[in-house]
Amino acid sequence: MKPPVHANLSPVRIALLGLGTVGSSLADLLNEHREHIYLSTGRSTEICAVLINDTSKDRPGIPETALVTNSMDDLLATEPNIICEAMGGITPTREYLLNALSLGIPVVTANKQLVARAGTELFAQAAKSGTQLRFEASVCGAVPIIRMLRESLSATRVSRVLGILNGTTNYMLTMMSSHGQSYEEALSEAQRLGYAEPDPTEDVEGTDAAAKLAILAGIAFGTTAGLDDIHTRGITQITATDIDYAKKLGYEVKLIARAERTIPSRRQNESSIALCVTPMLIKTHHPLSTIGGSTNAVLVDGSPFGRLVIQGAGAGGPETASALAGDIVSVMGSEPSFLTQDPHVKHIPVTAHELQTERQYVRMRVIDRPGVLATVAGAFSSNEISIEQVIQQRTTNDDEAMLVVTTHPCSLRQLQAALDLVEFKECVAVSILDDQ
Amino acid sequence: MKPPVHANLSPVRIALLGLGTVGSSLADLLNEHREHIYLSTGRSTEICAVLINDTSKDRPGIPETALVTNSMDDLLATEPNIICEAMGGITPTREYLLNALSLGIPVVTANKQLVARAGTELFAQAAKSGTQLRFEASVCGAVPIIRMLRESLSATRVSRVLGILNGTTNYMLTMMSSHGQSYEEALSEAQRLGYAEPDPTEDVEGTDAAAKLAILAGIAFGTTAGLDDIHTRGITQITATDIDYAKKLGYEVKLIARAERTIPSRRQNESSIALCVTPMLIKTHHPLSTIGGSTNAVLVDGSPFGRLVIQGAGAGGPETASALAGDIVSVMGSEPSFLTQDPHVKHIPVTAHELQTERQYVRMRVIDRPGVLATVAGAFSSNEISIEQVIQQRTTNDDEAMLVVTTHPCSLRQLQAALDLVEFKECVAVSILDDQ
Repeated sequence: MKPPVHANLSPVRIALLGLGTVGSSLADLLNEHREHIYLSTGRSTEICAVLINDTSKDRPGIPETALVTNSMDDLLATEPNIICEAMGGITPTREYLLNALSLGIPVVTANKQLVARAGTELFAQAAKSGTQLRFEASVCGAVPIIRMLRESLSATRVSRVLGILNGTTNYMLTMMSSHGQSYEEALSEAQRLGYAEPDPTEDVEGTDAAAKLAILAGIAFGTTAGLDDIHTRGITQITATDIDYAKKLGYEVKLIARAERTIPSRRQNESSIALCVTPMLIKTHHPLSTIGGSTNAVLVDGSPFGRLVIQGAGAGGPETASALAGDIVSVMGSEPSFLTQDPHVKHIPVTAHELQTERQYVRMRVIDRPGVLATVAGAFSSNEISIEQVIQQRTTNDDEAMLVVTTHPCSLRQLQAALDLVEFKECVAVSILDDQ
Repeated sequence: MKPPVHANLSPVRIALLGLGTVGSSLADLLNEHREHIYLSTGRSTEICAVLINDTSKDRPGIPETALVTNSMDDLLATEPNIICEAMGGITPTREYLLNALSLGIPVVTANKQLVARAGTELFAQAAKSGTQLRFEASVCGAVPIIRMLRESLSATRVSRVLGILNGTTNYMLTMMSSHGQSYEEALSEAQRLGYAEPDPTEDVEGTDAAAKLAILAGIAFGTTAGLDDIHTRGITQITATDIDYAKKLGYEVKLIARAERTIPSRRQNESSIALCVTPMLIKTHHPLSTIGGSTNAVLVDGSPFGRLVIQGAGAGGPETASALAGDIVSVMGSEPSFLTQDPHVKHIPVTAHELQTERQYVRMRVIDRPGVLATVAGAFSSNEISIEQVIQQRTTNDDEAMLVVTTHPCSLRQLQAALDLVEFKECVAVSILDDQ
């Protein structure tokens, strides 16, 4: 075994912000894989400081020599070479990281909300100081999608990113689809297993997926979209009945985060980016329809690479820590000035979701009286929506009928106008993924 | 738009070896994405020289200023910063690349056979000179599996790599499965579409996949396995009949390249690596069973990341060029001494395939006489192979029967000993993937 090139270099000093599940897993990982990292990079690592609120707590995996403190100034005084953030939150994390970057210290973070909300500011500071901000762990846990977009595909043109970015809702939809559970049963089960928080709002309303999409779209397209630019609708309206009908039509229901380059129209010369997080019907043979349980997956279409799909564990302390460790290794091996550019530098505009046209699945529970289908068909046709397929079925309630309609491409505005003309007791509309 | 950090640096000079499909695609890609690369890395690129046999040929996409030559010495005299090899072959390519590395010039290559056969030598030279050898394009075209193993997972422990690494055979098996084609029909179709060479031996015998597996296993496990260490069996014995039976049993047939860490036994204290390329029966819900057509896919299991699966276009000039371009960008952004270590540095031994036990599917065409099932069952049980499931069916030939047996785990030695006791007219045995 030959000595690595850098055999005489001193260890890389890593300061850890936060010592929860992810932070502790990272400390363990760096201990266990010390030799492996040394062989890969020619440098070893040591944790020089840890920032925690309660410094009296046990801290397994942290060396005796490391400073344990609740003061960011004291932590910076240990002169870390890399700061690794696993404390979460926006305040005071944002200030801590801006400060570290301004001192030229590379930052590796797992903080999705921070990168989504304050990314532009952080990237600007990194560029100004000529240092790196890496954030693989902020999106999809162990799945190296950031590296794929930022490095492997850096000399290509991405046309579309489609992702299952939230494990909780994918677990729920999988249980509803494969075990016939109701929405409520699936949610309880997810909470029992620790996949869903006691307050599941962020997951089921789609806001968690939207934050991740904002990050991915920034890298893939250079758009500066904030969370408010992303049309977001969660899975709360999806019922077991919809999943059943979807299956009959040859689809699975998934919560899909989408960012796509739109084709320039006559009105608009340049392409823009359409962004949304919505439930979608996906053909059963599509690579995203088979992603089950709490797995995350991202599909990237573009030129000249064609289509890439990557899937893996999207959450969990050890899984997220493995992404942080990968970023630490990359920082150790790259030029200080590499990847300091703001990926949003191109400022491509965002298209309003309402302008996009796509096929729709619409399920309506209506009063079963003569002419009800004619009324619905009329409402659609008067708004220039072509109907592709109709299923009309009785319900257990004698005076009600269930109408399931799939349409040819139409805008949400058209659809809303049509539905305004129909008297229904319940109505669920879900876009259909048209994947050529 | 802010000027990149390195705005005043001179362009990175790239010398191209070979100007076939991949080389030309790369030249086009570097032209098209000049600005994008500049924004990502703060440097621009220029092609300073091209090595081709016939210097009189047209060379679209190559700038007027570039030297076009058939002399490696003249090419080196242009002082390239990176050498990008897309000429293929072992001789003289090996000498050219060793020479470039010895001069400290980073090398990016798409040459699978060269990396599989001369990798150790090339890595040693790179380490000695403190320069980089990158080879993403040598395995699975556009799919960034090398980067995933070498960087994202560099601080983790991989336990298994399973891959569909050959697009030609996967296309053939897909056509046999979904269109009921015979082996011969699927091969003709693949040849007609340009997926298979006029001489398809490398693909259908599994040697192409074995070369790629040798490269992946080297990075994932540090094993120095050569092609001779890989138990390799292609798909030539697989018939449409086997694919039908597999489906009835709930499986698809795929050509799988495997590298797995074995569990240390009492006889052997350290773990070793089992390597093989064989057709396998894979449960229809497994992520690799749905990989259709000429797509490549790699599944990686390990700790603490769990399971990652990545899929995409495994071949094609533009797709392979996108992997070369990604490597060029990475070389531009990384320390000269990063990733110079020989990934084989650990020298983990290889386990003989015959020692591995796994479940088997065995289809036999036998003379249909009384007691034939008893004979077969006896042959298996006298070799201590437990039978899991049996299907016995008539064939169109009155005096013949088809027997399909699936077994509990047994070694290939046991299986061979059992089959030696059976008189059959045809026999196909395929391992079954047991994926916990």
